Amino acid sequence: MENNFVIIMAGGIGSRFWPKSRVALPKQFIDILGTGQSLIQMTYDRFKDICPPENIYVITNESYSGLVKAHLPQLDDKQIIKEPLRRNTAPCVAYAAHKILATNPDARMIVSPSDHFVERKDVFNEMMLRGLDFAGKNDALLTLGIVPTRPDTGYGYIQFIEDQNKERIYKVKTFTEKPTLEIAKEFLNSGDFLWNSGIFIWSAKSIYKAFEKLEPEMHEIFAEGAEYYNTDKEAVFIKKAYTQCTNESIDYAIMEKSDNVYVLPADFGWSDLGTWQSLYEKYEKDYLGNAVSGSNVLVRDAANSMVMVPDNKLVVLQGLDGYCVIDTGDVLLICQKEKEQEIKEITAEVKKRKGEKYL
Amino acid sequence: MENNFVIIMAGGIGSRFWPKSRVALPKQFIDILGTGQSLIQMTYDRFKDICPPENIYVITNESYSGLVKAHLPQLDDKQIIKEPLRRNTAPCVAYAAHKILATNPDARMIVSPSDHFVERKDVFNEMMLRGLDFAGKNDALLTLGIVPTRPDTGYGYIQFIEDQNKERIYKVKTFTEKPTLEIAKEFLNSGDFLWNSGIFIWSAKSIYKAFEKLEPEMHEIFAEGAEYYNTDKEAVFIKKAYTQCTNESIDYAIMEKSDNVYVLPADFGWSDLGTWQSLYEKYEKDYLGNAVSGSNVLVRDAANSMVMVPDNKLVVLQGLDGYCVIDTGDVLLICQKEKEQEIKEITAEVKKRKGEKYL
Repeated sequence: MENNFVIIMAGGIGSRFWPKSRVALPKQFIDILGTGQSLIQMTYDRFKDICPPENIYVITNESYSGLVKAHLPQLDDKQIIKEPLRRNTAPCVAYAAHKILATNPDARMIVSPSDHFVERKDVFNEMMLRGLDFAGKNDALLTLGIVPTRPDTGYGYIQFIEDQNKERIYKVKTFTEKPTLEIAKEFLNSGDFLWNSGIFIWSAKSIYKAFEKLEPEMHEIFAEGAEYYNTDKEAVFIKKAYTQCTNESIDYAIMEKSDNVYVLPADFGWSDLGTWQSLYEKYEKDYLGNAVSGSNVLVRDAANSMVMVPDNKLVVLQGLDGYCVIDTGDVLLICQKEKEQEIKEITAEVKKRKGEKYL
Repeated sequence: MENNFVIIMAGGIGSRFWPKSRVALPKQFIDILGTGQSLIQMTYDRFKDICPPENIYVITNESYSGLVKAHLPQLDDKQIIKEPLRRNTAPCVAYAAHKILATNPDARMIVSPSDHFVERKDVFNEMMLRGLDFAGKNDALLTLGIVPTRPDTGYGYIQFIEDQNKERIYKVKTFTEKPTLEIAKEFLNSGDFLWNSGIFIWSAKSIYKAFEKLEPEMHEIFAEGAEYYNTDKEAVFIKKAYTQCTNESIDYAIMEKSDNVYVLPADFGWSDLGTWQSLYEKYEKDYLGNAVSGSNVLVRDAANSMVMVPDNKLVVLQGLDGYCVIDTGDVLLICQKEKEQEIKEITAEVKKRKGEKYL
């Protein structure tokens, strides 16, 4: 148990949830499900029984360290790992691995996003412990694969090679980026594809070795600071290290290239809450299928819509089917709920025409 | 000229323009066309060459007298006629007629709404003068009939009996309330129907006599105060008089019952701006047919929509066709533009569920 570590990655800006998620207050710091807890608080709570509380770390952009402290006041300062620059998940994982390894050479790590949704915590808990056990015994990079329930084109897929091992942890054959609907349907029917959850489990040593082998330059950058981790020289060293790092995802840098990648199929009611559509699916809905956040909303013949507006604003909706209506006070977005790609294009257009102000 | 009087009726609450038009600030006091002038200011300006400025009166609910003064500071206090209660247009006209008659027994009056739109002011001017000339020579109640351009089901219609008189002012055969689309099409094709503009022209004596004959009770109420008009006892008298009046429109009380009603067909680009749809028609539109008021609106594939939002709010619209999007800060309305009946039902529902606060 004392060798179990959890690294919660909380540096994202949640741009697909614009305008609710903003650069200054991204999705993980919002109570977007209306549960009374932000997503990062819910994530933290899920890991409480997995490891000692002092072994839970949050790694985030340094600009969000105040938000992390505010949302998770139980964390000690040293449990908040600050990234000086946004360099995607590969440097983030490398940094965390070096730091944890310097703390405990026998560490087993879970690396998890901070802004996902899990419905069945007991199953989640069991999977995490099973994964940590496997990672402690094998030089393997383990990823959590979600048993797919629909041909979702918004997720990456993992193909695995089924065998009869009693741990039900399987060798990964391929990673696939977001497929077309046709291919997604084939994946679903084949039965040997899982959704890529972005939750990883490995020993600190195994991921260290993987970087050493597959990303030697990035490995070298972080290895040079071995003596500085967990000292007051760490911050200065990391600042320099990050400027040298390329922007790469852990999937691209390690998982897709490694030959000791395994997947643990899991089914705990997971969603990455990556789009308005996926948030809509998790929301309680009225009999017309409207998910409404806002205490002053009059729905007339609107249906299948996601409505998120201030409580003190009277909002009257008529004749809408399948829309997002998001009012944040300074921004109003009305768009078709299933046009997920739109949000990305919209924020790009907003940035181009209005600058950073509304992002 | 000195016998010409204009009575601008400005007591309405403009409920069909909710939420932009509010009980506390109705449509006539809003620069709803974005011209820099409120509708009542535009209305006043149209009558500047019709009569001496001291002969233009505004009659309104007493709660709006401050707004009238603010919008038309050139008016003397005595040119603002205050109604103590809302009793529709019949008491309003009767009151004004008695008051004007006490001022000038030879007065000819134009009675006009304060919140309509006129495109061709020169034609309008000519029609008003022609109508006043006719009213000065005949004991007749003259109404302005607009040559219809489409089978609009939102207007009342006036059927007239065409003859060869050189003034081109015709006897009215019938008044018809808002027709069905089928009937409106027949009206349009027949060529002997006009839209009821709600602009009336008559001598003070003629309308006085019409009330005397057709609404003797209401006539008596106002006749009793003959000695008080234009004195400091007028307000107290009127307060009592209004409590005795029934709620009736001038159309119903007088025009539909009288046998000396005439119509002057006119074509000066008129709209009653009675609905969001009719406002939309008068607005400048982008190439996709969107009428946008708000300096921070990003229209993606939206079309044929009426958008009225605060300048400082970023509004992004995607996938809307034919909608109204009206954001007033405290209220957001999204509804299909052509569902005019909806607004009435919506405000009724808002009143029922939220009280007067948002009306």
